[in-house]
Amino acid sequence: MAHKYVYLFKEGNATMRNLLGGKGANLAEMTGLGLPVPQGFTVSTEACTRYYEDGKVIADEIKEQIYAALKITEDEYGKKFGDKENPFLVSVRSGARASMPGMMDTILNLGLNDETVQGVVALTGNERFAYDSYRRFIQMFSDVVMEVEKKRFDEILDAVKEEVGAKLDTDLTAKDLKEVVKRYKAMYLEVKGEPFPQDPHVQLLEAVKAVFRSWDNPRAIVYRRMNDIPGDWGTAVNVQGMVFGNMGDDSGTGVAFTRNPSTGEKKLYGEYLMNAQGEDVVAGIRTPQPITQLEQTNPEVYAQFVKIAETLENHYRDMQDMEFTIEKGKLYMLQTRNGKRTAAAALAIAVDLVEEGMISKAEAVLQVDPKQLDALLHPQFDAAALKTAKPVTKGLPASPGAACGQIYFTAEEATAAAKAGQKVVLVRLETSPEDIEGMAAAQGIMTARGGMTSHAAVVARGMGRCCVAGCGEAKIDEENKTMTIGDTVLHEGDYISLDGSTGNVYAEAVATTDASMSGDFATLMGWADELRNLKVRTNADTPRDADVAYKFGAEGIGLCRTEHMFFQEDRIAAMREMIVAPNEEKRRTALAKLLPMQKEDFKGIYRAMHGQSVTIRFLDPPLHEFLPTKQEDIEALAAEMNMTVADLKSVIDGLHEFNPMLGHRGCRLAVTYPEIAEMQTRAVIEAAIEVNQEEGFQVVPEIMIPLVGEVKELKFVKDVVDKTAKQVMADKGAEIEYMVGTMIEVPRAALTADEIAKEAEFFSFGTNDLTQMTFGFSRDDAGKFLDDYYANKIFESDPFARVDQVGVGKLMKMAVELGRKTRPGMKMGICGEHGGDPSSVIFCHDIGLNYVSCSPFRVPIARLAAAHAAIKNPRK
Amino acid sequence: MAHKYVYLFKEGNATMRNLLGGKGANLAEMTGLGLPVPQGFTVSTEACTRYYEDGKVIADEIKEQIYAALKITEDEYGKKFGDKENPFLVSVRSGARASMPGMMDTILNLGLNDETVQGVVALTGNERFAYDSYRRFIQMFSDVVMEVEKKRFDEILDAVKEEVGAKLDTDLTAKDLKEVVKRYKAMYLEVKGEPFPQDPHVQLLEAVKAVFRSWDNPRAIVYRRMNDIPGDWGTAVNVQGMVFGNMGDDSGTGVAFTRNPSTGEKKLYGEYLMNAQGEDVVAGIRTPQPITQLEQTNPEVYAQFVKIAETLENHYRDMQDMEFTIEKGKLYMLQTRNGKRTAAAALAIAVDLVEEGMISKAEAVLQVDPKQLDALLHPQFDAAALKTAKPVTKGLPASPGAACGQIYFTAEEATAAAKAGQKVVLVRLETSPEDIEGMAAAQGIMTARGGMTSHAAVVARGMGRCCVAGCGEAKIDEENKTMTIGDTVLHEGDYISLDGSTGNVYAEAVATTDASMSGDFATLMGWADELRNLKVRTNADTPRDADVAYKFGAEGIGLCRTEHMFFQEDRIAAMREMIVAPNEEKRRTALAKLLPMQKEDFKGIYRAMHGQSVTIRFLDPPLHEFLPTKQEDIEALAAEMNMTVADLKSVIDGLHEFNPMLGHRGCRLAVTYPEIAEMQTRAVIEAAIEVNQEEGFQVVPEIMIPLVGEVKELKFVKDVVDKTAKQVMADKGAEIEYMVGTMIEVPRAALTADEIAKEAEFFSFGTNDLTQMTFGFSRDDAGKFLDDYYANKIFESDPFARVDQVGVGKLMKMAVELGRKTRPGMKMGICGEHGGDPSSVIFCHDIGLNYVSCSPFRVPIARLAAAHAAIKNPRK
Repeated sequence: MAHKYVYLFKEGNATMRNLLGGKGANLAEMTGLGLPVPQGFTVSTEACTRYYEDGKVIADEIKEQIYAALKITEDEYGKKFGDKENPFLVSVRSGARASMPGMMDTILNLGLNDETVQGVVALTGNERFAYDSYRRFIQMFSDVVMEVEKKRFDEILDAVKEEVGAKLDTDLTAKDLKEVVKRYKAMYLEVKGEPFPQDPHVQLLEAVKAVFRSWDNPRAIVYRRMNDIPGDWGTAVNVQGMVFGNMGDDSGTGVAFTRNPSTGEKKLYGEYLMNAQGEDVVAGIRTPQPITQLEQTNPEVYAQFVKIAETLENHYRDMQDMEFTIEKGKLYMLQTRNGKRTAAAALAIAVDLVEEGMISKAEAVLQVDPKQLDALLHPQFDAAALKTAKPVTKGLPASPGAACGQIYFTAEEATAAAKAGQKVVLVRLETSPEDIEGMAAAQGIMTARGGMTSHAAVVARGMGRCCVAGCGEAKIDEENKTMTIGDTVLHEGDYISLDGSTGNVYAEAVATTDASMSGDFATLMGWADELRNLKVRTNADTPRDADVAYKFGAEGIGLCRTEHMFFQEDRIAAMREMIVAPNEEKRRTALAKLLPMQKEDFKGIYRAMHGQSVTIRFLDPPLHEFLPTKQEDIEALAAEMNMTVADLKSVIDGLHEFNPMLGHRGCRLAVTYPEIAEMQTRAVIEAAIEVNQEEGFQVVPEIMIPLVGEVKELKFVKDVVDKTAKQVMADKGAEIEYMVGTMIEVPRAALTADEIAKEAEFFSFGTNDLTQMTFGFSRDDAGKFLDDYYANKIFESDPFARVDQVGVGKLMKMAVELGRKTRPGMKMGICGEHGGDPSSVIFCHDIGLNYVSCSPFRVPIARLAAAHAAIKNPRK
Repeated sequence: MAHKYVYLFKEGNATMRNLLGGKGANLAEMTGLGLPVPQGFTVSTEACTRYYEDGKVIADEIKEQIYAALKITEDEYGKKFGDKENPFLVSVRSGARASMPGMMDTILNLGLNDETVQGVVALTGNERFAYDSYRRFIQMFSDVVMEVEKKRFDEILDAVKEEVGAKLDTDLTAKDLKEVVKRYKAMYLEVKGEPFPQDPHVQLLEAVKAVFRSWDNPRAIVYRRMNDIPGDWGTAVNVQGMVFGNMGDDSGTGVAFTRNPSTGEKKLYGEYLMNAQGEDVVAGIRTPQPITQLEQTNPEVYAQFVKIAETLENHYRDMQDMEFTIEKGKLYMLQTRNGKRTAAAALAIAVDLVEEGMISKAEAVLQVDPKQLDALLHPQFDAAALKTAKPVTKGLPASPGAACGQIYFTAEEATAAAKAGQKVVLVRLETSPEDIEGMAAAQGIMTARGGMTSHAAVVARGMGRCCVAGCGEAKIDEENKTMTIGDTVLHEGDYISLDGSTGNVYAEAVATTDASMSGDFATLMGWADELRNLKVRTNADTPRDADVAYKFGAEGIGLCRTEHMFFQEDRIAAMREMIVAPNEEKRRTALAKLLPMQKEDFKGIYRAMHGQSVTIRFLDPPLHEFLPTKQEDIEALAAEMNMTVADLKSVIDGLHEFNPMLGHRGCRLAVTYPEIAEMQTRAVIEAAIEVNQEEGFQVVPEIMIPLVGEVKELKFVKDVVDKTAKQVMADKGAEIEYMVGTMIEVPRAALTADEIAKEAEFFSFGTNDLTQMTFGFSRDDAGKFLDDYYANKIFESDPFARVDQVGVGKLMKMAVELGRKTRPGMKMGICGEHGGDPSSVIFCHDIGLNYVSCSPFRVPIARLAAAHAAIKNPRK
C-alpha cells in the first residue's frame, strides 16, 4: 500500500500533531469530540518534506490522495468542486507542529471561478455575497499563491469605493463588487501575463504548494530561528469545506480565548464581526465587537459557544484560543489551540489551573515558557516620572510592560537603529509578518489600527514586547515619517513612551524602573525551584549586578570577570603602567597599586551574595585591549608613564595581534606574568578572609583559570595560586577553603578533560569561546556571513544564542564524562551566555551539569527552564 | 626492599637503555662482552625523575645506593675515594636514553683535592700528570657543576703559558701547573665566596646533581624539542673509574667510527691524541691524528682496537662510534654507541649491511632516520657557477651539501637574520652547545678550529647542515665581526658559500642546484616503498613544484592551493575586480577573466603529475588578503577599477576582520559567492577533460572544499560543484569522473565527521588550522608566548611541527572512525605541514590514513617515515 499522506479530519486526533500539524490535529480532535467542525482533510507534514525532497514538486501519489479525500468531502457536503450548479468551496490553511502565526495567510473561498460564482448566486440567491466571496478569493489567491502585490488590489477596491461613494466594504453593492472582480482579473492578466486560473483543481494544488513554499519563506525562517523550531519539521495543509461569515447580518466570524490572554482572568475574551470573513477580524481593518456583545445579539449561539469553550478548555486542560464562524445563525468551530498569552497571564492561568485542581504543579510549571518571563523582568515606568508625564493618546493595551525609545516607522529602520545601539519604538499603521524582525528589535510597538487580536498584538505578546495597538487618534504618515496626534507632530528619532498595560502613549521619554516579582510569579517560581536539579548562578562583575541577581534568586556567582574592574577610570592607569612596565619589578609595583582596589571589589561582591559561592575568573583579555589606540591618547599616556611616544608606540606595536581571539590571553598571560596571578590570588583570598571575619560568612572562593588547553598550563598557574594563597593565609593567620578550577572553552580542554581534571577542582564551560573555536569562526566577524547561512538553511539557529548540541554539545558531553572519570562527582557548570537560554539550560541539565550561570535578568528564566528540564528528564 | 636506583656496570645490559641511558647500557653490555671497560656504576634515569619529584633533592636512599656502589667499585680497583695514599678517581658523565651530544660536559678526575693529588704524585711518580689532572678537574667541575665561566680559567692558563713562554699546554711543567692550580683555586674563592670543595663525596653528589640539572637546561630543552625527545625521560649518570690518557707519551685518548660517518665507507675512521684527556679531542683545541696513524706508532693497541671495533659492530649490527683511552699502553673502552652519520653514509651503510647479510631490508630502512634525508635533498652547487668560482680557503669537509648565505658571527644574530628571511651562514671560531639554535637556523656552519669530530661537525651532520670545520687559515674576529682570509676581509652580511663535501670556502655567492638521487638512495627508497602502506602525495600549487615532487616520488597532489594562483601579477587585477564588484553580474565578469588562466594552471599541474590524482582546494583565504593596504596602492587600484578612493576604501574597510583566521573564508566564501565555486569547478573539469583528451590520461580531479564545519555547508557547495560539472560535461560532450571531499580542519568537522561523510567522498586533515583551533591559538601570534611554554615545560614540542597526538590527534582519530562508519573504506589523508614530519607520518599510519601530503622536498622523508611506520606497526 502506498504511504498515507492525506488524512480526513475524522481519521486524526490531537496526538497526531507531528503528522497533521497543530491546526489539523485539533480539527480532528474537535471532530472526534462531536463539535460542529466543517469537515475536510489534512495534507500531512510528511507530504511537505517529500515535496522538498522531490525538488519542490507534489508527487503524483500525493495528488491522488488529495483528490480522493476531496471526493469524500464533496460527497459529505453533497457538493462538487467546480460544479456550476452546486459548487464546493474550501479554505486552505497552513498548520505546522508548532504554532507559527502569520507565516502563511489563509486562502478562503477556493473553488470560485467565473462559472461557479454563478452557482453560488443561484444557490444562495445572494449575488452580493457571491461576488464579495469571489473578489476576496481572487485577492487572497493572487497575493498568497501568485505573489501579486496586495497593494494593487487595495488600490482597485479603494478606487471603486470612491467612484460609488462607499465608505465601508459592506457599502458596496453586488454590481460594485462585480466591477471589482472584473478589474482584479484584468490587473492579474496584466501582471502575470495569463488569466486568473479558473480550474479549481489547479487552484487547489497551487494553494497546497504555496503553503509548502511558505514554510521556507524568509519570515518563517526568522520566526523558526527565534523560536527554536527545526527546519525539517515542515508544515501540514488543511483543506476544509467553507462556511461563510459574510452571508449577511445573521452571519459572522470571530476569535475568542477561554481566559483573558493579557491578565489571565477566567472570563471568555474575544472579538467578532458580523457579515465578515475571518481575515477581517485579525487584519484589524474593521474594528470588531467584544464577544460579550454576542450574548445580547445572539444568545443561543453565544450559549453554545460558551459551552464549547468550556468543553475545550477542560479537554485540553489549558486556556484555548478559538476561531469560529456563524453562517446564517449556525455556529462552526474553525480552530482551537492553546492560547498565546502574556507572561503575567501565563502565570495567573497556571496558578489558577492548579488551584482549580485541573493540573499539577509540574504541569503548571511546564505551561509557562521560560522565555516569556523576560517580559515580567523588564522595566515598568518609574512611578514618580509617570506622575508628571501626560499621555497624548490612548490605544489598546495589547501587550504589557513599559517601553521608551526613539520612533522608527519601518521594521528595517527600527532594526538598523537598534543594531546601532538605540532603544527604539516601532510605530506602524498596522504590522504584518514582514515586520517580525523590527518588532523583535524594538522596545515596544505602537499601531494605529487593529485590535487585541491583531497581528501586532498577538506577536508582541508572544515576544514579550510592550504593545499599544489600535491607536486610532494617531495619524501615521509612514512615507514622510511623521505621526500626528492632535497638535503634536512626532518625527523619526523623537522619543515616545508606551504603557502596554494601560494603552497610554507619551510623547516624551518616561523613566522606567525594575519590575517587582511577587504573587503568581513567586508561587510558580517556588514550584519551579522545588522541581529543578540545576542550580542557577549569575554572571556578575560588580556588587550592583550581584545584588540584582541575588534578588532574582541567583545561588552564587558563576562568572566574575576581573578584567572589567581594570577598565574603570581609577584603575586603568595602574593597569597600563603594569602593561608597559619594562621588567618584573616595575610590573609588581603597578600590580601593588591594583591589589587594594581589586580586593575591595571582591569584598563588595562577596557581601552582595551573602556568602554564597563566587567564581572568579583571572585576567582574560589580551593586554593590548587596555592600551589606547588614538594618537592623542597615546601621547597622554606616554607623558603619564614618563616614556617617549616612540617607546610607548613600540610597546603597543609589540602587543599587536593578528587574531586576538587566539592570542596572548587567558592563562597564557599568567604563564608569562605569574605575578599577575599572584596579585589576583592575594586579592581573592585576603578579601574572603576579611569578609568572613567581618560578616561571619563562610565564603569559599572558586578561582577559575581561563583558556586552559593543556593540563600542564593549569598546573603551572595553580601552583602560583596555591603558593600565594598559602602565603596570604600565613600572613593573615587565618585558614579558608578555596577551589581552583578552569574554564572549558578551548576544544583541546574538552578533549583532554580527564587530564585536566587531575588539577582542576571544577569545570565551567565557557561556551562563547568554545563555540567560536569549535566552529572556527569569530563572533565579531561571523555577522558577515551568518545571514547567508540562515538564508541557505545551513544554520537554523544562532550558535552563540543556543548551544550547538551536535558539535559543541558533543565536546561538552565528552568533557563531562572524561572529567568525572578522573574526579567523580566533580562540580561542573556553564558560564557562557548560553546559560540563560532555555533550550541550552535543558541541554545542560541533560548532560549532568550542576549549575548554569547567566546574566542577572536571565536568572528567573534559567530557574524555570531548569525546572522544565527536570520534569521532562528526571535525574535518577 | 628499597627501589634500586644504582646499577653496577656488570648488573646491566644493552636492553636496559630506558633505565641506564644509552651510555650506561652500552658500558654494561661491553662489560658483559668481556671488553676492557673501566668499571663503575650507573645512577638510573628513575633517580633523575625522583630528583625532580622531590624538588631537586637527591633522596637519602639514593645517596646510600651511590655510596654502596662506590664502595664495591673502590674495592675492585683496590683504591679509596679521598684516600691520601691510594686515591680513587672517577669520571662522571650524563647518559640519556637517546644520545644528546654536548648536553652535559663530562667531569674527569673527580676525587682530586689538595691531599689526594699528592697521593697521585706518589703513586705515579708523575707530578706533572697529577697537577695536569687536578687543574683539569678544577676547571671542569667549576664550569659544569658550579657555573664558573670557563673563560676565567682560560685566561689564567693563557697568562701562565705566556709567563713561562709555553706554546702548547703540554709545554707546561709540573711547577707551572701547580701555579695554575693555585690561581684557579684563588679565582674560585673570589667568584664563589667559598673555597673549592675538597670532600670527594661532596664533589660526587654535586656532580650527580649537576647532571640531573643539565637535563633541564635551555639547550637540552631545545635539543629535545628538535629531536622529539620527551621531557620526562630524564638522564642517567655514569660514574666510572678513571683511566688516564694524559699519563705521558705512552698514553692517549681518541674516538673512532667503525665506518666513515661522512661517506659510509667500510673503514675504521677516527682521531686520537697522545698524552691528552678526552675533552682535548672533541673540543678541537689541539689537532688530533688520524686513527690509522696508531697502527704505525702502537700496532698492538691498534690491532686490539680493530678487533674490538669489529666485535662491537657485529654485536650491535650497526656502525659504532667508540671512545677509548690508552693508559700507559693499555687500551680501555669508554663508550660505544650507534654512530651518528651523514645521510649519504647512513644510506651507504644500510645498503652495505644488507649486502653483507648482517641486517634485513626492513632493518636497513629503520637504520636511516627520515629527517636525515633532508641533507641529500638540499641544493648542491651549480656546476657552471662553480667553474668560475674560486675558493679562498679550504677546511675540513665536516658535513656534506652546499650552502650559500650571509655571514653572521653569533648564533643569536644568525637566528634573528634567518627569522627575518635571510639565508645565513654561521661563522664561529668553534661552536659550543649554546650555538645549537643558530646552527639550525643557518644554511651552513664554518669554524676556524676543530676537527671532523668537533662539536660543530657532529651537530651539523646530525642536523643535515653543511659544515666546513677547522678552517685554520681564516682569522675570525667575533668581537669586531670580521673574518680575514689572506687579503680578503669579510664582514657581517657579506655572502659566503661553503662546500661541505670538499671543505672549499668561497667568498662570494655561488648558485646552487637540486640534488640528484640515485645509487644507495634509490635502493633504500625502493625498499621503503615496498614496505610502506601510506601513499605519499605532495602539496604543490604550480607545475614546477609538481614536477619536483613527481621526481621525488610523489604519488599525486594532496593539496593544490588555488589562491596562490590569484596572487600572480597577471591575475591579481581580475581578482581585485571580482572582490570589489558591486553585484553578482560584475563579479561574474571578473571571474570569467580568471577562468582561462586558472584552467591553464590546472592543465599544467595535471601534466606535471602524469595523470595522477590531484586534489584541488577551492579558494580559502579571506578576500581582504588580495586587496592593497598602502594608500598609494589603494589609489592606483581605485583608478584602475574606475572607483573613487573613498568607495574603494569603504569596500576594504567593510572587509576588515578582527580575527581573519576565524573570518569570512574557506567554504564560507562559496556560500556567499557560489559563482566563485562555479568558476573554479569549470576550470577544474574543463582542464581535466582537455588534458585527458590531449594526453590520454585518466585524471580524476578531487575537489576539496575547505573549512567545512557543518555538513549542510558542504552540501551547499557540493551542489554548486555537481551542477556546474554536469553542465561543463554536457558543454564539452565528455564524461569524466571526479570527487568532492573536504578538509577536516575545523574541530566541529571532526566531531561530526559521520554527518560530513554523508556528503564528502574523501577527507583531508588540514592539521595547521585544526591545531590552531583545537589549541585556540593562532600561529601568527603564538610566538609571543610559546617560548614561555617551552621554558616552563608546558609544551615539549611545537604543535605546528609535530601533530599533538593527545588533543588534535584525538580529534583526527575520532574523525577517521566516524567518517568510515558512514562511508566504509573512505579515502583519507593529511595535507597540513605535519604531513612531512616523520613522527606525524607514523601517527597518520597508525590511525589508518591512506596518504600523507607534504611539500615536494619532504616527499622522500615521508616515504621513508611511512616505511618505518609500517615496519613498526604492520597493518592487518
